[in-house]
Parts: sequence; C-alpha cells; structure tokens
Amino acid sequence: MGRYQEMTTQELENELEQMKQEYRSYQKMDLRLDMSRGKPCTEQLDLSMGMMDALNSQVDLTCEDGTDCRNYGGLSGIEEAKVLIGDMMENHPDNIIIYGNSSLNVMYDTLSRAMLRGVMGSTPWSKLEKPKFLCPVPGYDRHFSMTEYFGIEMIPVPMNQEGPDMDMVERLVAEDGLIKGIWCVPKYSNPSGLTYSERTVRRFARLKPAANDFRIFWDNAYGIHHLYDDKQDYIPDILAECKRAGNPDMVYKFASTSKVTFPGSGIAALATSQNNLVDIKKQLSQQTIGHDKVNQLRHVRFFKDIHGMIQHMQRHAEILRPKFKAVDSALEKNLAGLGVGEWSKPNGGYFIMFNTLPGCAKEVVLRAKKAGVTMTEAGATWPYHEDPHDSDIRIAPTYPPLEDLKIAAELFTLCVRIVSAEKILEERTAETGNAEE
Amino acid sequence: MGRYQEMTTQELENELEQMKQEYRSYQKMDLRLDMSRGKPCTEQLDLSMGMMDALNSQVDLTCEDGTDCRNYGGLSGIEEAKVLIGDMMENHPDNIIIYGNSSLNVMYDTLSRAMLRGVMGSTPWSKLEKPKFLCPVPGYDRHFSMTEYFGIEMIPVPMNQEGPDMDMVERLVAEDGLIKGIWCVPKYSNPSGLTYSERTVRRFARLKPAANDFRIFWDNAYGIHHLYDDKQDYIPDILAECKRAGNPDMVYKFASTSKVTFPGSGIAALATSQNNLVDIKKQLSQQTIGHDKVNQLRHVRFFKDIHGMIQHMQRHAEILRPKFKAVDSALEKNLAGLGVGEWSKPNGGYFIMFNTLPGCAKEVVLRAKKAGVTMTEAGATWPYHEDPHDSDIRIAPTYPPLEDLKIAAELFTLCVRIVSAEKILEERTAETGNAEE
Repeated sequence: MGRYQEMTTQELENELEQMKQEYRSYQKMDLRLDMSRGKPCTEQLDLSMGMMDALNSQVDLTCEDGTDCRNYGGLSGIEEAKVLIGDMMENHPDNIIIYGNSSLNVMYDTLSRAMLRGVMGSTPWSKLEKPKFLCPVPGYDRHFSMTEYFGIEMIPVPMNQEGPDMDMVERLVAEDGLIKGIWCVPKYSNPSGLTYSERTVRRFARLKPAANDFRIFWDNAYGIHHLYDDKQDYIPDILAECKRAGNPDMVYKFASTSKVTFPGSGIAALATSQNNLVDIKKQLSQQTIGHDKVNQLRHVRFFKDIHGMIQHMQRHAEILRPKFKAVDSALEKNLAGLGVGEWSKPNGGYFIMFNTLPGCAKEVVLRAKKAGVTMTEAGATWPYHEDPHDSDIRIAPTYPPLEDLKIAAELFTLCVRIVSAEKILEERTAETGNAEE
Repeated sequence: MGRYQEMTTQELENELEQMKQEYRSYQKMDLRLDMSRGKPCTEQLDLSMGMMDALNSQVDLTCEDGTDCRNYGGLSGIEEAKVLIGDMMENHPDNIIIYGNSSLNVMYDTLSRAMLRGVMGSTPWSKLEKPKFLCPVPGYDRHFSMTEYFGIEMIPVPMNQEGPDMDMVERLVAEDGLIKGIWCVPKYSNPSGLTYSERTVRRFARLKPAANDFRIFWDNAYGIHHLYDDKQDYIPDILAECKRAGNPDMVYKFASTSKVTFPGSGIAALATSQNNLVDIKKQLSQQTIGHDKVNQLRHVRFFKDIHGMIQHMQRHAEILRPKFKAVDSALEKNLAGLGVGEWSKPNGGYFIMFNTLPGCAKEVVLRAKKAGVTMTEAGATWPYHEDPHDSDIRIAPTYPPLEDLKIAAELFTLCVRIVSAEKILEERTAETGNAEE
C-alpha cells in the first residue's frame, strides 16, 4: 500500500471502511490496556525482590563510618550510597545529596526553594514580575505542570535530532534575565527517547545567561536505562563540562533509582557544585533531619557496587527490549510508507514518540480510548497541554504484558490510519468545497 | 542543706569551692556525653529490628485493595497504613495523608505551600507584609528555626501548667489577621514534657481568628509515647473538637513513627479536614507521584494493628523509665530544697525541662560542655534563641546509656549549683557595691 495522500478518494474511503470494521472488532474485545505512563512492569519489579532480603533483623545496620542508619542524622545521605549513586550519575560522591524516594520531589523542592529564597543569594523568583523557564518540546508533562503550578512562564523550545534548538536557547538566555531555568531530560529523553548530542551538552555548559541565578534542571532520569548492550547512547557529564566552561554552579542534576529498583521506594539524588550544595543545605537542614538511611543502606547492600547495578539494568533491558520491539514492529508493519506518522527508535528509556499528521493526535488518543487502550493524553508533552500541531503522542510500552502490548499497538496503528484517512478526506472535501465557492 | 539564698556568703563560698573541686574531678574523666537531642537509644532501636523481617523476597507486596506497593502511585498512602496511623493519631483514615520519613518535612512543606500559594485560596503568606506565628515558649527549636527561615515573625506566648496562655492566644488571633498560625506540641510537649489540659484543647478549637487562613500546627509528636502504663496523659482529638466548634478546617495535625520504629526510616502523616486535604493534594500531586509504600506496608505488617504498636511502645517505656528516673533522682538528690532550679516530671515524651535561676542557663550549659557533657543550647527553646530570662534548659535523657546518663545528670546538677552560687554571690557583691556608692 502506498502513501495515503497519493490514494484516490475512493481508495481511501474503501481503506477507511475496512479499518473501521477492524476497529469495531477490537471494541468488542472489551480491552483495558494502558500505554500511558512510564511504569515498570511486574517482571521488572520482581528483579528487585532480592533487595527485600538485603537487610534483615540479624544484619548490622551500621555504615562503614560507624553511623547507625536506624537513628536520626545524615542530612546529605550515607557515604556508601553517595559512592554508589555517584558511580550511577558519573559524579563525585562529594557533589551529591541523597534524598528520599522521588527525584520529582527533589526538583519540586529545588524550584520551591528558588521561589521563596532565590539561588545563592539572588532575589527569590516569587518576587519577580514573571520568572520564565525554557521548555524543550516535546517534554515531560510533570516538569511542565510543576512549572505552571509555581506560576513560572514556560517558553517552548523545539527539539531536533541533537536535542533542544541550541541557537534559540543561547539567544534567549543571553537576552532575557527573567529566564531562570531550562528543563532537560538529556538521555533517552521523555518522551522522544532520543539523546542530546555531545555538542549540545557542551553548548549547554557554555551558555552565557543574563541571569546569574539561571540554572539548568538536568533530569538524567534514564542515565543507565539502556535497551541494548551494544547500542548505548552516551553524554558527557554536565557538571564536569560546566566546571570546565567556567560555569561550575549553572546546573542541578537529578536522578533516582525509581526505575532501577522500586518506583516510590527507591532513592533520589541531586548532584551539583559545592557552592550550590552549601546553599541547598541551608534550606534542607530546615526541612528535615535526614532522609531514609536504612533504605539507602538497603540499596547499597543489594547492589554492592555500580557493576551490580549495571548487571541489574541488563536484566531490565531483557524484559523491555521485546516490548519496544513489539511496538516498533507493529508501527513498521502497519504504518511504514503510508505517510501518516513518524516515530522514534530509542536505544533506551521508557518511551517512543509518535508524530501523527498535523491535527490528528487528540483524535487518535480518543479513538484508542474508546476501544479500551489508554494513551498519554495528547498535548501532555507540551507546556499548558498546548501542542500547536496536535501531533505528538507519547507511547509507553513498558507496563503492559507483552501480549497485551501487541494488541494495544495494533489497535493504536489502526486508530492512526482511521484518523489520518478521515483527516485527508476531510481536507479534500474542504478543498473541493473551497473550489466550488 | 538549705536554700542557697539563705546561706551566708561564707557558707556559699565554701559550698562553691567544694563544688568546683568536684567539677575538676569530672573534668579529669574526659567525658563525652550527650543529653542534647531527643534521640532514641540503641536498645530502643533494637526493639524494631523485627521490622526488617516483616518483608522479604518471598512476601507478597500487594495491598489489600490490590495495589502493588512496589510501583508508582498512591499519593495519599496505602489504606492499611492510614488505618494504623489513624488509630495512632485517633483520626479517621479518610482524614489522613501518609507522607515520607519525616513529620518535620511535612510541616515544612505545609508552611512552604502556604507561603507560595496560600491556604484554600487565600493570599500567599509570602505576599503579605509580615505574616506572624504564635510560638508557645519554651518550644521546639526546629519549629522556630523553620519559621524564622520562612521570614515569619514569631510572637512568644508563655506556657503554664495547662498549656499556652489561652487568654493571650485568643486575644491575639482575634485582633491580628496577620497571625496565620501557632505551633503546638500538645502532649508530653517538647521541651517541658507537660500536656495541655482538656480545657486548653477545647479553647483552641473555639478560637475566633481574624485570619480565615489561620491554622493550628498541632505537632502531636508524642501521642503514644507514655512512660507509664498507669499514669498516662490524655488530650481530646483536636480535629473532632474543631469540627464540633464549627472550625473544621482550622487545624493541621502532624505525627510520625520516628520515635516508634526508626528515626529517619519511619512514616509521617498529616490529619486534617477534607477541605484542607483537597487543597493539599492539589500541591502534593505536583510534588510527588507518591511516598514510599513499601515502607508503609513494612510498618503495617510489623505492627499488625494499633495494639501491636501500643505493646511496642510499652517496651520503649521500659527502657526509658529508668533513664527519666535517674535524671529526676539526681535532680532531687542534689538540688531539692536549694532554691536553684525547678524541673518538670513528665509522664511521657522525650524531655525534662529545667529552669535555672534567672540568668544562669547559658552558663550552666557552657560549664557542662567544658566537662564533656553536651546539653541542648540554652535559648534554643525560644524564638530567635532569645530566652529573656536565660533560664530554660532542655534535658534529653533518652540517648545516653543509663550509666553515662547518671554521670551526666550528676555533673549537670553540679554545674547548676556552681553557676547558681556564683550568681548569688555576684548579686550580693553588686548590691554591696551599690550600697557603698
């Protein structure tokens, strides 16, 4: 079959009729499938059950430095957790604070602190007329809704194959001192799955922002979340790059073990410069006496070291590869050459990005929903949920069982074909109508 | 021996000389003892080691409602944890949000939210000229330093045997709409160890604050932390009282298992009205996907129910009773009848409050420090660290081993006697000097 745009109206109407018939048969299956969130599946969670045995009542819960993990204290985390997470993040343990169970919470607290108290002595952002953030799009919906919650204006920056449009980023941050930050998911990005180029990372490190309290919010959520052993994306460490570029304090780097061990029961961390750490600890010591050191120790005892963690991630990959492959196969089989959409082929992470013809994404998601397949809401990957092209759909293949996923992916492609055909026919009618006027 | 004030100058000088000699012998012991923080001791922590066996790799980590605790979700906590903590807090599970490991963090986040976004639609407190909090004194140092951090003005309110001076509280909150909150530790209070009377609780519930976003920050940190089985303090539940009084939304109630299981690895909770919960969840859903459900489940499986928790607290009490008794005995033996100080005799909690003669507290703490015994900094129990009488010292008897504690308590009384004698002699000299002028 050729491109939809090149089919005759009759051919397209026949195609549409056939697709709709197929769609109705899916509807009869009473499906309840979910491709909406980047959640690990049960088999992935099972990989970490051994962590529940890492500590027991007979085990000494004392750190190497003599700290009793059961008691108060340890604001920045236990040393052995900093070493492990330091290896994971590719940062020195001294640059790390271990937090609680959620890197999202760390990002929120980081924004909240800047809003109320500024950054290293700057004017609190809440006292400014209009603080702004650059938001590479498509991006992570929770970043955007959090930013909106704080009343920070979001400026979309388009992503290309190398990452955000750096010409635009460089220009905007240099021009506008009210631009205080930028959200980045640099590796296996949410939602495209693509990775910033080395050049992009270095250009980030060399930014010359007008605001001296401008910070890069570098959410390296998928740093070790490869799908393959032989095809792995690589990015330079942004802290080291910023230091070399004379911008040592310009970045907050976030990560967690949420998609390594258990989401919600992992450990999150922030890596940043000593100056930023001093600034942060002033606030953090008001907020808490310390995070969960027993859980930090549990992670360390379970993985032993970064090699243990990497082997663990290979087992995750074994579970996830067939799922990403299943979705990609369905997309290839049912959509290749039709000219009705493009999609990413990531080497890691949790998502595949699908781009419909302009104006089709919302309708595709709605159609899928009506047949029992939940996708991430169309538009969610844009600030204020406003995708100007109504084209971006995030596919999250990790959670459903493989057999369900295959069905969901088939149905999804069917919805794309139906909505695309309808759209093209509609446009032809409109054109004819216009011609007749 | 009689009251110091009634001794002759010669008698007092002899006493002082003898005490100083004793003090020097303590100094030679090279002590390193700590009565400064309300930390559980090792034996207390050992009581909860069984919790490390409550979950293991063979155990199903699924909730009764089918939630897989290992995965994302559950913003307000798992139902069985709400039931357990609800029983602990004497609140309905539906009024509870289970948070992470620290109730201090919950209080911080509550203040932070009010500062940035207001309370149930009110003007954000950070936008006000000068938000204020009432601070019953003596109080918890971390409450005060947090309040100061947020730039909230603190107004001290004296405590009496029934709790805060309610005449003053009622008048101030009715008069001044900038008074947005009050800190309360209603039961086995930090640092006095005393409990508000029922009448005080009911007067709190009946407050008529000028500010409709006034909130009582009710830190019920020691709700089940009794020292005795037969002598237990009781307070009515403030949520129920507020509801009855027509002020259902006026209180945030905080608690945690930090001093039940492991400090830093327990679970914290907030209990409040449905209106407040709706307001809070709007923010909380921006901050996190959910707190650590596995640790919530671990607590539930360990205690099974509130009866299990209460039995567990009796074992804590068995460890703590001798410690409180040791301190009280030393105070009685060495200070009773001397007129140099008064102290509380709490039925629970983590602290004994000691009041020196005016102007002696700082010096007593310094003297103790110089002989190797660390006390909570004098003044810490007052806003801005300003104890106008320089009289309040918080004694924390829980952490040191009993034998160490006995030595530390002896030394403490010695320091009180030395500093008091010096003070009285100094005042006599000053009076004589004045008489000679």
